[in-house]
Amino acid sequence: MKLGMIGLGRMGGNMARRLMQGGHQIVAFDRDPDAVAKLVADGAEGAASLVEVRGKLDSPAIWWVMLPAGAITEQTVAAIAEGAKAGDIVIDGGNSFYKDDIRRAKMLADRGLKYVDVGTSGGVWGLDRGYCMMIGGDDETMRLLDPVFETLAPGAGKIPRTPGRVHDKVDPRAEKGYIHAGPPGAGHFVKMVHNGIEYGLMQAYAEGFDILKSKSSDKLPEDERFDLNLTDIAEVWRRGSVISSWLLDLTAIALAKDSMLSQFSGHVADSGEGQWTIDAAMEEKVPANVLTAALFARYRSRIEHTFGDQVLSAMRFGFGGHTEIPQ
Amino acid sequence: MKLGMIGLGRMGGNMARRLMQGGHQIVAFDRDPDAVAKLVADGAEGAASLVEVRGKLDSPAIWWVMLPAGAITEQTVAAIAEGAKAGDIVIDGGNSFYKDDIRRAKMLADRGLKYVDVGTSGGVWGLDRGYCMMIGGDDETMRLLDPVFETLAPGAGKIPRTPGRVHDKVDPRAEKGYIHAGPPGAGHFVKMVHNGIEYGLMQAYAEGFDILKSKSSDKLPEDERFDLNLTDIAEVWRRGSVISSWLLDLTAIALAKDSMLSQFSGHVADSGEGQWTIDAAMEEKVPANVLTAALFARYRSRIEHTFGDQVLSAMRFGFGGHTEIPQ
Amino acid sequence: MKLGMIGLGRMGGNMARRLMQGGHQIVAFDRDPDAVAKLVADGAEGAASLVEVRGKLDSPAIWWVMLPAGAITEQTVAAIAEGAKAGDIVIDGGNSFYKDDIRRAKMLADRGLKYVDVGTSGGVWGLDRGYCMMIGGDDETMRLLDPVFETLAPGAGKIPRTPGRVHDKVDPRAEKGYIHAGPPGAGHFVKMVHNGIEYGLMQAYAEGFDILKSKSSDKLPEDERFDLNLTDIAEVWRRGSVISSWLLDLTAIALAKDSMLSQFSGHVADSGEGQWTIDAAMEEKVPANVLTAALFARYRSRIEHTFGDQVLSAMRFGFGGHTEIPQ
Amino acid sequence: MKLGMIGLGRMGGNMARRLMQGGHQIVAFDRDPDAVAKLVADGAEGAASLVEVRGKLDSPAIWWVMLPAGAITEQTVAAIAEGAKAGDIVIDGGNSFYKDDIRRAKMLADRGLKYVDVGTSGGVWGLDRGYCMMIGGDDETMRLLDPVFETLAPGAGKIPRTPGRVHDKVDPRAEKGYIHAGPPGAGHFVKMVHNGIEYGLMQAYAEGFDILKSKSSDKLPEDERFDLNLTDIAEVWRRGSVISSWLLDLTAIALAKDSMLSQFSGHVADSGEGQWTIDAAMEEKVPANVLTAALFARYRSRIEHTFGDQVLSAMRFGFGGHTEIPQ
Repeated sequence: MKLGMIGLGRMGGNMARRLMQGGHQIVAFDRDPDAVAKLVADGAEGAASLVEVRGKLDSPAIWWVMLPAGAITEQTVAAIAEGAKAGDIVIDGGNSFYKDDIRRAKMLADRGLKYVDVGTSGGVWGLDRGYCMMIGGDDETMRLLDPVFETLAPGAGKIPRTPGRVHDKVDPRAEKGYIHAGPPGAGHFVKMVHNGIEYGLMQAYAEGFDILKSKSSDKLPEDERFDLNLTDIAEVWRRGSVISSWLLDLTAIALAKDSMLSQFSGHVADSGEGQWTIDAAMEEKVPANVLTAALFARYRSRIEHTFGDQVLSAMRFGFGGHTEIPQ
Repeated sequence: MKLGMIGLGRMGGNMARRLMQGGHQIVAFDRDPDAVAKLVADGAEGAASLVEVRGKLDSPAIWWVMLPAGAITEQTVAAIAEGAKAGDIVIDGGNSFYKDDIRRAKMLADRGLKYVDVGTSGGVWGLDRGYCMMIGGDDETMRLLDPVFETLAPGAGKIPRTPGRVHDKVDPRAEKGYIHAGPPGAGHFVKMVHNGIEYGLMQAYAEGFDILKSKSSDKLPEDERFDLNLTDIAEVWRRGSVISSWLLDLTAIALAKDSMLSQFSGHVADSGEGQWTIDAAMEEKVPANVLTAALFARYRSRIEHTFGDQVLSAMRFGFGGHTEIPQ
Repeated sequence: MKLGMIGLGRMGGNMARRLMQGGHQIVAFDRDPDAVAKLVADGAEGAASLVEVRGKLDSPAIWWVMLPAGAITEQTVAAIAEGAKAGDIVIDGGNSFYKDDIRRAKMLADRGLKYVDVGTSGGVWGLDRGYCMMIGGDDETMRLLDPVFETLAPGAGKIPRTPGRVHDKVDPRAEKGYIHAGPPGAGHFVKMVHNGIEYGLMQAYAEGFDILKSKSSDKLPEDERFDLNLTDIAEVWRRGSVISSWLLDLTAIALAKDSMLSQFSGHVADSGEGQWTIDAAMEEKVPANVLTAALFARYRSRIEHTFGDQVLSAMRFGFGGHTEIPQ
Repeated sequence: MKLGMIGLGRMGGNMARRLMQGGHQIVAFDRDPDAVAKLVADGAEGAASLVEVRGKLDSPAIWWVMLPAGAITEQTVAAIAEGAKAGDIVIDGGNSFYKDDIRRAKMLADRGLKYVDVGTSGGVWGLDRGYCMMIGGDDETMRLLDPVFETLAPGAGKIPRTPGRVHDKVDPRAEKGYIHAGPPGAGHFVKMVHNGIEYGLMQAYAEGFDILKSKSSDKLPEDERFDLNLTDIAEVWRRGSVISSWLLDLTAIALAKDSMLSQFSGHVADSGEGQWTIDAAMEEKVPANVLTAALFARYRSRIEHTFGDQVLSAMRFGFGGHTEIPQ
């Protein structure tokens, strides 16, 4: 198929390449002409404006918007809608908030346009491994776009089939690495929770490795200290343990390179999905202590001392005359 | 009554003074002769050794040990037991772990000695306000020591009686500010949980004031920022609000002095009781998310970046090529 | 002063009474004519509609809206604004979300009307004790309404002054039990965080008492069990301990009545403020583990088993063949 | 090699079988003669007592104890030590607390015996997949036992090598699926943290799936509900997503069988390692909010209502007159 790729950053550029490798045609646009030029060198048609992109696409035009969530995606979708023809399809492949998807889908539907939201996992490895995709949209549009998603997805590959899955009764898409999650918004909602879980998993490993490393602390009695080889521990857990995972594989890679991880200071960013996941939990009244603690650990990693810590010190001084002894 | 006070630090010295003000006689001992001299100036008999203390006490001798929990208390109790006569009473007024009390009480019972553990709350304010005490020991010893505890305790004072409390059916001690919690160990156990709760209460205020202060953050949309007067907020909550408390009073004092709390850096120590409370919760299989989070917030306050944070950064670099942007 | 009280429930009715006792005049309206009749019996003028209320008020009219947060408050404010005259003042004394206040204040300003938001703490005890109030609005309106707030507030009473507070440099309102927190929205924001803290404090006590009670569990070794008197423990902590508070007083009352609290099953509701406080923390990127854990404990209290628990059981069966043994 | 297998339950029996399939000889003992008979049928020598086991082993004898942690392991190790000859090796392959290992290793060393602790992950899948092992002991004993561990371990298999691992500079054991973690105790310590992480990972998935499932709740606005296919979501995340893992594979299997997981009620047991991990974190002063929340979620899953919940309800009734509305 032929589609316009709007936004040629790390994600958009590689997705366009994977699509071209799979036989699709790409009309490429980015605010940065160099990014367009690079993709043209890799086989895409370039375009200097959204209008020019539309001109190079057939009807219904397929627009894949791959931009940072927020204002820029919002404006771009609006601009595309402005110049679109009835039946055109706008795909938001970024990390938009799912309630924005619901709203935008209604807005586009009023103009006879289709809206599809694609939550994508796989990071910088996606070009080679394929992208795991969670998709919101209507059935008909979903069917139309299947060839695109099949190319982007990892496919069944060598991953063993899930025992007990009755293959003639279920949607075959999941095994190929993408799903039709539901109506517009459902794709990004599932991706949002995916990221919430991701935070939780990461923090579980982080705390575990912290406990392992701190077992050599001289705060402990001398005969209860261990000087553990974290690199080997991560490696061995990859092999037959209950906690093997891709995130553990990545941890093993990092520790193999430098068991002190001295390249990393420990300021950990968080994207919107973590926070939105907690919002969703609160809306649903679902307790989510682990996912929340994981999010808050990231906030805390970026603060030297909270004002709350100072309040604690002030109270301790107040009732006990305790002065602070930095450690 | 006449009793030996062993350990004349901030707590022991003031308790001895309050006892003398209440008409009791004190034989004072401390490793630091200056501390002894000061208390002698306030009316105590001094002693230069535990043996000398015993010589100045009648039988049964009453020993009040007021030392840091751990090795020094352990050794002192053992040394006292060594030189004690049957019927003597050893009181541990420090912050010992209650399982140590249970063990020591058995050890002393084997020698015909009595052991009493007193958990004390009130901090540096106790000299004036009196000490709230939670006491473990046998009934008879408890009755013998009542005059001592009555003097140390705050008494009923102006605090309103609890509606619904049937005064002729309950132990009158509680209204005077001390209780016989149970057998040896029970006093420190109740005090331990008291401190666990204290951590939780403090952290709840700390987080709340942090949220209030951070409401002026320039990360927020401009029309959603408030520059709040924390000093006045603490003050007004003291008056008729659901969250009024003594800890809030102390917070109001600290904020009245300096609303930025700039005297405090935010390195917050924790004593054993917080940790032991979580241990107790785990032994009992009681979920204690708030008390644990409060304890962990203190650990975190003393760490610049955890190794766990570095593990998170390493994973994020691994799957997304994300580099750290310190904020 | 003369003001209209809209909503005569538990809160609104008592506030109207306290105002009349303080010499103010009330025009009372409620959808329930019986509620109006009761207040008329206590000295108010009744009204059968918002229009009638306006007719009985001078200019600028002062409207105190005391209704459940959400649609009904929204509609009532809109209806009042419809019939108001320039300079009229609308006070929302309920528990509205502060962003709704910001929005409404702008809407009313466009019509030349004033908007004031009042967060109120004190519960059913307010009629006697007075109401602690956190108020958002402009300076001029605040000054105009001072007589109303002074009457509603507890006043300085017998509560000791905060040492270090420099009384000639600070707003005297805080000592009387109310503050001008900032522009519209600031009152409800401070009240929201107040409630967030309230949840945290309550959960800290709840976990502590749970640990105390469970210390008699037969899961524990026999010589480590204590059968503790929770009623006396709550009572003694009221007297000189670091954790004394009004919430503890209430706990002591409840335990004095029935130490098993058998009247209460443990389904704990949560109002919007707890959730909004966590939202605010996330917007500000402030870690708030204790306040969140307190909120989630309430969600969990209303669920028999989470689906998450079932997922855990399914995994445990998957890797270990573990079957569930209900306890 | 020839070794005695003491304890032929689900774990011990299968490990013995895997060892025999790898060419080792097993002398099998269990309190249950049927268990011995079954293993004899599979090729082992049987024994009716520990003494008989020793008689059938060469010197140094190798004992693999595979029993529940606690009293039974303690007694069995003591009994073996009683009848052992200098140089004999006792392996504890169960889930003992690592401080017990340190103590036992010293006790055995006094008698000229070697002690090895093996933490094992892999569950019921180990017979086929091999067991991931974390081992504590001295270097010489470790080398002696290498053939045993190599047989039990999964081996490198098809799992891709970790990029960046410099194979001629590192212990080759880790790639085969077992490590020499350190001196006695280190094996079980690493396994303990492994299980702590396991709890955290499981709870992260559990909360995520709970949030997905509850998105169909009728508490939500109708146009924000999604009725998501959890089975397909688990399936698609196995393929290229950041959160793919073996625990997710198991979840996918369970959901493929029954997306409601109606076989499971949600009473979730916890073994000692989760609690010990939090103990270790507290000893090291490492914040571990996620691992702790995961543990507490399990406690909570087994309680209908906590006493703490009742305390909350009692307070709410106290200050607000709120009555409980079960939901």
